Amino acid sequence: MDAIRWEGNTLYLLDQTRLPVQEDWIAYTDFRSVARAITDMVVRGAPAIGITAAYAYCLAALEFRNAPDFAAAMEQAEQVLAASRPTAVNLFWALRRMADCLKANGSTPEAIDVLIQEAQAIHEEDVEMNRTLGDFGAAVVPAHARILTHCNAGSLATGGYGTALGVVRSAFNQGKVDMVYADETRPLLQGARLTAYELVHDNIPCTLITDNMAGFLMAQGKVDLVILGCDRMAANGDFANKIGTYSVAVNARYHGIPFYTALPSSTIDLSIEDGSGIPIEERPGVEVTHLAGVQTAPEQVRTWNPAFDVTPHQLLTGIITERGVIYPPFKENLAKLFG
Amino acid sequence: MDAIRWEGNTLYLLDQTRLPVQEDWIAYTDFRSVARAITDMVVRGAPAIGITAAYAYCLAALEFRNAPDFAAAMEQAEQVLAASRPTAVNLFWALRRMADCLKANGSTPEAIDVLIQEAQAIHEEDVEMNRTLGDFGAAVVPAHARILTHCNAGSLATGGYGTALGVVRSAFNQGKVDMVYADETRPLLQGARLTAYELVHDNIPCTLITDNMAGFLMAQGKVDLVILGCDRMAANGDFANKIGTYSVAVNARYHGIPFYTALPSSTIDLSIEDGSGIPIEERPGVEVTHLAGVQTAPEQVRTWNPAFDVTPHQLLTGIITERGVIYPPFKENLAKLFG
Repeated sequence: MDAIRWEGNTLYLLDQTRLPVQEDWIAYTDFRSVARAITDMVVRGAPAIGITAAYAYCLAALEFRNAPDFAAAMEQAEQVLAASRPTAVNLFWALRRMADCLKANGSTPEAIDVLIQEAQAIHEEDVEMNRTLGDFGAAVVPAHARILTHCNAGSLATGGYGTALGVVRSAFNQGKVDMVYADETRPLLQGARLTAYELVHDNIPCTLITDNMAGFLMAQGKVDLVILGCDRMAANGDFANKIGTYSVAVNARYHGIPFYTALPSSTIDLSIEDGSGIPIEERPGVEVTHLAGVQTAPEQVRTWNPAFDVTPHQLLTGIITERGVIYPPFKENLAKLFG
Repeated sequence: MDAIRWEGNTLYLLDQTRLPVQEDWIAYTDFRSVARAITDMVVRGAPAIGITAAYAYCLAALEFRNAPDFAAAMEQAEQVLAASRPTAVNLFWALRRMADCLKANGSTPEAIDVLIQEAQAIHEEDVEMNRTLGDFGAAVVPAHARILTHCNAGSLATGGYGTALGVVRSAFNQGKVDMVYADETRPLLQGARLTAYELVHDNIPCTLITDNMAGFLMAQGKVDLVILGCDRMAANGDFANKIGTYSVAVNARYHGIPFYTALPSSTIDLSIEDGSGIPIEERPGVEVTHLAGVQTAPEQVRTWNPAFDVTPHQLLTGIITERGVIYPPFKENLAKLFG
């Protein structure tokens, strides 16, 4: 299963706002439309956003190949893409890598083929990292595991295979997964719409619950471990992930349940000391007062709609990466592996 | 604001499945339809279910007034009504009170007027108890309070005024409430649809959040106390309430935030020793896979949909009742006040 394709100088995105009811692929040749697609969450998930931005950078290069000042036009395009979403760091990481590639190749339109190869490399490396971290992560999964996950950190959130769901896939292939409990993940229901869709598709046993059931599920002894994704990790291991992650972390700690995040190194931001430095996107209140176009609250009500929360490293059991599983002290061990 | 009316031997219920978009009153003269209305949550909230069942008992008496065996027919009607929902104890409490009233008045159709008076007394006493417990509860609310609540324990869940929202109303009238944060309360969104509706209607400042935001809100220091309702409390203070209550309780404990439940004595079930004895209703999975008729998950996915969870008394700061606020040891103090 994949959600991002590059064919004939065109970027195709599987419209994740329509899943699971419709499987629509949208074709993009305009980088500005891709920036809007990121903002509107046609594509989402930190690694997938990075890959998409890299391809969009190629679309900009194709558009500007005859521009009077190619390098300046590309810098502007980079800014447009960087403004699409603030929290996931892979966006900035991928754009920096593409800009570096352009500079290393003379900052001229002649670099276009190399840029496309670079974007494809980012894409392929991501899938490769997911498989590697999936295998590392599977080692922490016990036999007959009942795993709780939140949001979607699967194939659809990455170049393919997935981070948290990459671990699930690897552990399932080793016969160790009895059940995956998927939080539906309000407001945009990535758990219900995307994680359940992926797991049903792969015949991995999956039970869908509303977010507020996770604590009671843990109290009944039905969760052996939690594995979820990450949108940005600070140098000390604090990490931003989809809103609701923090509440799951608190409940996991209260019940003594191991709590892991799985992420490729492109999600680690060592330039930020701790979680307080991670910008948290707030999205429109209509996502809380409506669902799938249906109004579910009085129009006059105030809302609060942070798209992410920050979980302090103290609540983490381990960090699953493509270079291995990292345990406390996180700051030292992150620096050792990625510094 | 009220949701239950009795006029001309007819029961009128405000259809709570349609709020806040539509305000439809449905007229009932058939007790079986009322039982279905309870199951389908046209009316919900432990005290409101009790009041509704009492009026439905009167409808049964009116229907069976010429039945060959009136007493037997009434016993059957009582069973039909008792089977409508399993968790909230007020249903059984109200039916027992009505059956006792019938027996005390000769178990004949001549008792109909007395039965109607009894149902109206249950209704009026509930409002009175809510006002009294509201005033007791207001004493635990600090100045400039930011209160988090879950589900709807308001006018719509009771005969009027509300339990948890009764406390909020009393505290607001004393000028002590800066903000009420309402969890939307998936799957049926009683927080978004009913609590937000009541608070907007009464001009009490209200911010709607999804359930999974409550923990992050607490982490930011924005919640001073939690007050929510109760569907059944065991002798030791363990209590069933809308699914998600337990997760809020765990988060409140982790953040050192006072956590109260507010309930009339009709919600206390001293016949049950602890929370393990409270039957938890499981509802159809379609409530989790769909929202307002819109499919939000793949059809093949498994679901788990407990309508309630049980919060152990250890996570409770205090129990707000019409006889005062009860503190630990709950078992002893509940027995003292209600034994």
